[in-house]
Amino acid sequence: MRYAVKLAYDGGPFSGWQKQPGRVTIQGVLEEALEAFCHEKPTVHGAGRTDKGVHALGQVASFDLTSDKPAKTVLLAANAHLPKYVRVIDVTPVDTSFHARYGAVWREYVYHVWMGGACYPQIRPYVWWNGRRRWNMDTIREACRRFAGTHDFGAFCRASERPENSERTIYSMTVARRGPLVRFRVRGNAFLTNMVRIMIGTIDKAGTGEWPLEIIDNLLEGSERTEAGPTAPAGGLTLMRVGYEGLRWPGRSFLR
Amino acid sequence: MRYAVKLAYDGGPFSGWQKQPGRVTIQGVLEEALEAFCHEKPTVHGAGRTDKGVHALGQVASFDLTSDKPAKTVLLAANAHLPKYVRVIDVTPVDTSFHARYGAVWREYVYHVWMGGACYPQIRPYVWWNGRRRWNMDTIREACRRFAGTHDFGAFCRASERPENSERTIYSMTVARRGPLVRFRVRGNAFLTNMVRIMIGTIDKAGTGEWPLEIIDNLLEGSERTEAGPTAPAGGLTLMRVGYEGLRWPGRSFLR
Repeated sequence: MRYAVKLAYDGGPFSGWQKQPGRVTIQGVLEEALEAFCHEKPTVHGAGRTDKGVHALGQVASFDLTSDKPAKTVLLAANAHLPKYVRVIDVTPVDTSFHARYGAVWREYVYHVWMGGACYPQIRPYVWWNGRRRWNMDTIREACRRFAGTHDFGAFCRASERPENSERTIYSMTVARRGPLVRFRVRGNAFLTNMVRIMIGTIDKAGTGEWPLEIIDNLLEGSERTEAGPTAPAGGLTLMRVGYEGLRWPGRSFLR
Repeated sequence: MRYAVKLAYDGGPFSGWQKQPGRVTIQGVLEEALEAFCHEKPTVHGAGRTDKGVHALGQVASFDLTSDKPAKTVLLAANAHLPKYVRVIDVTPVDTSFHARYGAVWREYVYHVWMGGACYPQIRPYVWWNGRRRWNMDTIREACRRFAGTHDFGAFCRASERPENSERTIYSMTVARRGPLVRFRVRGNAFLTNMVRIMIGTIDKAGTGEWPLEIIDNLLEGSERTEAGPTAPAGGLTLMRVGYEGLRWPGRSFLR
């Protein structure tokens, strides 16, 4: 039986999604939790291979179990064995053609920036605290608009992990500000390593006036990593949702 | 010079607001942080003496320093010496007639309940996870309405701390639900020890249908503590705002 799970995690204590020897990763603890209660160790595929320190509210993963367990049993048993920073939020049986990574048609991330003087401890782990900078919000909005569309995002990828084809499509990128809290929301077909964080680091350069907006257009034609802005901190980034043809999760209206 | 500070804290690691020998408390760490940078140890007065484990986003406290330091210096220096779970969000010099506790004309608390199957780790410390219960939301709303007004809240106070005069006024109590997240918001002139938490524990009994609504009206006429519902968990409770005549903090529109 194949299952899809929706996962939430605080990425702070983890070395990212992907299993690595000697490191505590989300994929690793999830595979161990499954092993602990069903005595087999399925390989878990995740929709977004989030970096070290990146959070998730709606990561999607899939795996096979040889026995048919009720979805609710999988949810309760996995959560009983997972560290408290990782929770399985939903489980659903899926067709054997379903693959969390290859089947995903879009991913949506949010990136939170705190522009205030001191940050509330309740949200501090989930924002980039960027209190000393002043942003021109019109410039920031325009910068977001320029990322939309199909471009060569090679400059927005960790250099060592740049693939041969670095073309990706951003369906939308928006920004909203409520007091000192700024929220970027970006949806695309797929993302390169560090892509959202380098986009934010570049938008920051434009927002402060240090770089002209036009630099973004040039960067989107396949520049080198060194020409784009710095990588913004991992803690501000959260994987919110993943879209599939034919799989709808129950709405979680309290998450916006 | 007298200062008023707005404080946010995650109450999880603390034994409440009030200083106690051998315990780590918010008042205690704040007084120590002030001592560390100004070499005097002022007594800090807080608007709400939050219990062990209760959080704050808008606690207000006041204290005197013999030297006149700029407000910004007090904010930065206090935060440099405070544990990361406590942040001074704002500082303002105030008239020597100002007193954070005796001058407060209202306090506003929110209480969050999570009614879903599994809870997101990002909000888990700030909710009462109450997933197995089913509430009739119309009954819950009506229960909230019955608390509004001036009543004898003696039954809604930890028995050992019941004062002679247990009359208090609730200006408003509302409830809103977005998906599995239920938020109570209650504003009153002052609150007895555990008062909001016992109110929530009693509303829970009405919402599940275990107790009739009328029991609330009876309890508000000065019953014994044992007749009211259990004390709901501390983690769901957050002190949001405190109101004063003539003191306005800059709006924090991202907090609702």
